[in-house]
Amino acid sequence: MSYKRIYNFSAGPAMLPVPVLEEIQRDLVELPGVGMSILEISHRSKTFEAILAETEADIRALGAIPSNYRVLFLPGGASLQFSMVPMNFLASSATADYIDAGSWAEKAIKEAKKVGTINVAASTKGEGYTRIPGQTELKLTPGAAYVHITSNNTIEGTEYKQLPDVGATPLIADTSSDMFSRPLEISRHALIYSGAQKNMGPAGVTIVIIRDDLVARSAGRKASLPTMLSYAVHAENKSLYNTPATFAIYAVGLVMKWLAGQGGLAAIAKINERKAGKLYSEIDRTGFYRGTARKEHRSLMNVTFRLPSEELEKTFVKESAAVGLDGLKGHRSVGGIRASLYNAFPEAGVDELVNFMKEFERTRG
Amino acid sequence: MSYKRIYNFSAGPAMLPVPVLEEIQRDLVELPGVGMSILEISHRSKTFEAILAETEADIRALGAIPSNYRVLFLPGGASLQFSMVPMNFLASSATADYIDAGSWAEKAIKEAKKVGTINVAASTKGEGYTRIPGQTELKLTPGAAYVHITSNNTIEGTEYKQLPDVGATPLIADTSSDMFSRPLEISRHALIYSGAQKNMGPAGVTIVIIRDDLVARSAGRKASLPTMLSYAVHAENKSLYNTPATFAIYAVGLVMKWLAGQGGLAAIAKINERKAGKLYSEIDRTGFYRGTARKEHRSLMNVTFRLPSEELEKTFVKESAAVGLDGLKGHRSVGGIRASLYNAFPEAGVDELVNFMKEFERTRG
Repeated sequence: MSYKRIYNFSAGPAMLPVPVLEEIQRDLVELPGVGMSILEISHRSKTFEAILAETEADIRALGAIPSNYRVLFLPGGASLQFSMVPMNFLASSATADYIDAGSWAEKAIKEAKKVGTINVAASTKGEGYTRIPGQTELKLTPGAAYVHITSNNTIEGTEYKQLPDVGATPLIADTSSDMFSRPLEISRHALIYSGAQKNMGPAGVTIVIIRDDLVARSAGRKASLPTMLSYAVHAENKSLYNTPATFAIYAVGLVMKWLAGQGGLAAIAKINERKAGKLYSEIDRTGFYRGTARKEHRSLMNVTFRLPSEELEKTFVKESAAVGLDGLKGHRSVGGIRASLYNAFPEAGVDELVNFMKEFERTRG
Repeated sequence: MSYKRIYNFSAGPAMLPVPVLEEIQRDLVELPGVGMSILEISHRSKTFEAILAETEADIRALGAIPSNYRVLFLPGGASLQFSMVPMNFLASSATADYIDAGSWAEKAIKEAKKVGTINVAASTKGEGYTRIPGQTELKLTPGAAYVHITSNNTIEGTEYKQLPDVGATPLIADTSSDMFSRPLEISRHALIYSGAQKNMGPAGVTIVIIRDDLVARSAGRKASLPTMLSYAVHAENKSLYNTPATFAIYAVGLVMKWLAGQGGLAAIAKINERKAGKLYSEIDRTGFYRGTARKEHRSLMNVTFRLPSEELEKTFVKESAAVGLDGLKGHRSVGGIRASLYNAFPEAGVDELVNFMKEFERTRG
């Protein structure tokens, strides 16, 4: 089939692989052999249990997730995780360390402060979050409940190239915007969480990968926490404590199979490096465009840059949208241009953007 | 098109109207004129804002929702509402009244007790939840923070035919399993909440209709509550505080248009009465089948009944499934048979079940 699809550079929800969309479409009214739509089947049915198990197995295989980690499918996005993490793991006598390297880290800190004592181990806020704090800058708390990071900063266009060394303290990462865009050092984490709607599927489900010792820590608080906010409850019930987002889980499963078909995470990382590389090369070519993130921390997912004036940026956004390059406006809190290049964003779209940029500079520069 | 669709009697997720499924399928890869899938578009895009606004407008029109109520689209299902309600409205000095007329009410009570002081105003648990407590049985607390009911009991097959009189106390109702299956006395409620996955759409979104004075009460707690659990935050942000379940909201919107096309809530209520009436008539016909709910409180949504033996019930479930009548097994906590007949369940499926029941009785009775 052919479609008049446009290139959607928005920060998420984001583009999905066309073969996945076509499979969802084909089976929408009736899953093969089931006689019902995926939108209709009971979450307690054998059909859905098989879909859930297969999606988990595919996530495990792709991410090489060790057996001492559980994979959970939860509601509420990263924003609800901002509260669940401290509610489950931050005792009143303890301190949690947060590395503040972007606007979403700041939001996580704000929520955690409602729950307990937080130490901001380092912050680049004063520098407009243009870089990730280095290891030597970190003021970690001995015996901290955990250390929290945001692995990729969607708004500011930076990402961790190396995980911080936090010793024996559990490392918890919000990986919402780079999960499964590159190989994952899972065993260096105690817990990672990720809204699905950037690299993994449609909006509506949050993937949590949690080590068994944290499940056990969570279990100690089960009686006092809202049941829906307990990792232990969701782990015990294999994400079926209540009705999960059945369709979103199914769609994530299809995206996982597509990712495997691309060659897995090492292969998709190479593609993502090539896509972002083309765009950063164009940004650096003449100085007309100016990248906002420090070069060594540039994100492969969200490429942020400025033009010589806000006036030109407005024109750039308007004219690019008119030729089918959509969603290039930067986050309202920072302005400028942002091109989000998640897994399913086609390389041809990057090429078109680069051509557009060259032409824009030629006529307006 | 024709499909080999089976009749799905499960308690939710549940059957959706075929025209809705076909529209979702037709537009799945590309929303007309948008060049992107509903699964891909940004929740901040004009396209999605229009879908959200239209879905809300259709809900308001169908339910005749007064202008002093907000309509919210939240994650986490009724199970998360069990905690959000007391966290937002139950002050430490106050008491909330709960009417315990079914297993889900009991779960709501369990969560609320983690938050504050609960008075169980009446309970029919000792009678196996076979009926709804009468007005004279209610021991309401003067000045209670609110009174909580479950309008329809999915597991036990009972429903409120008349709302309790709670005076000036705010009435809060879990309407997950009968929302928009009949006209709604919205102005007698202060807040209603409903998982979408029975009468309104696929799993993944919870509809909350909340009166302005409760939004204001919630606002007073904003600073201390997890942001994602604050009704005030979601109301201020028109359900766009974070990425909502975009696809589920879109699908709910299509179901609302289908419901309007059926003639609205009064018309669908008549159809639902007729469907349930046929089944209850068959149950009452000879005494071979035995309804479990007291007749005056029988649910139109979940028809629960027993056979002379558990052995026969097993055979009934197995043989009905074999002829395309799926999901008739009662909830594991009570056993027996349950036929869920939500809005989109076709009357022809009820007729087939009645025929199957007659034949089953003839050959096994």
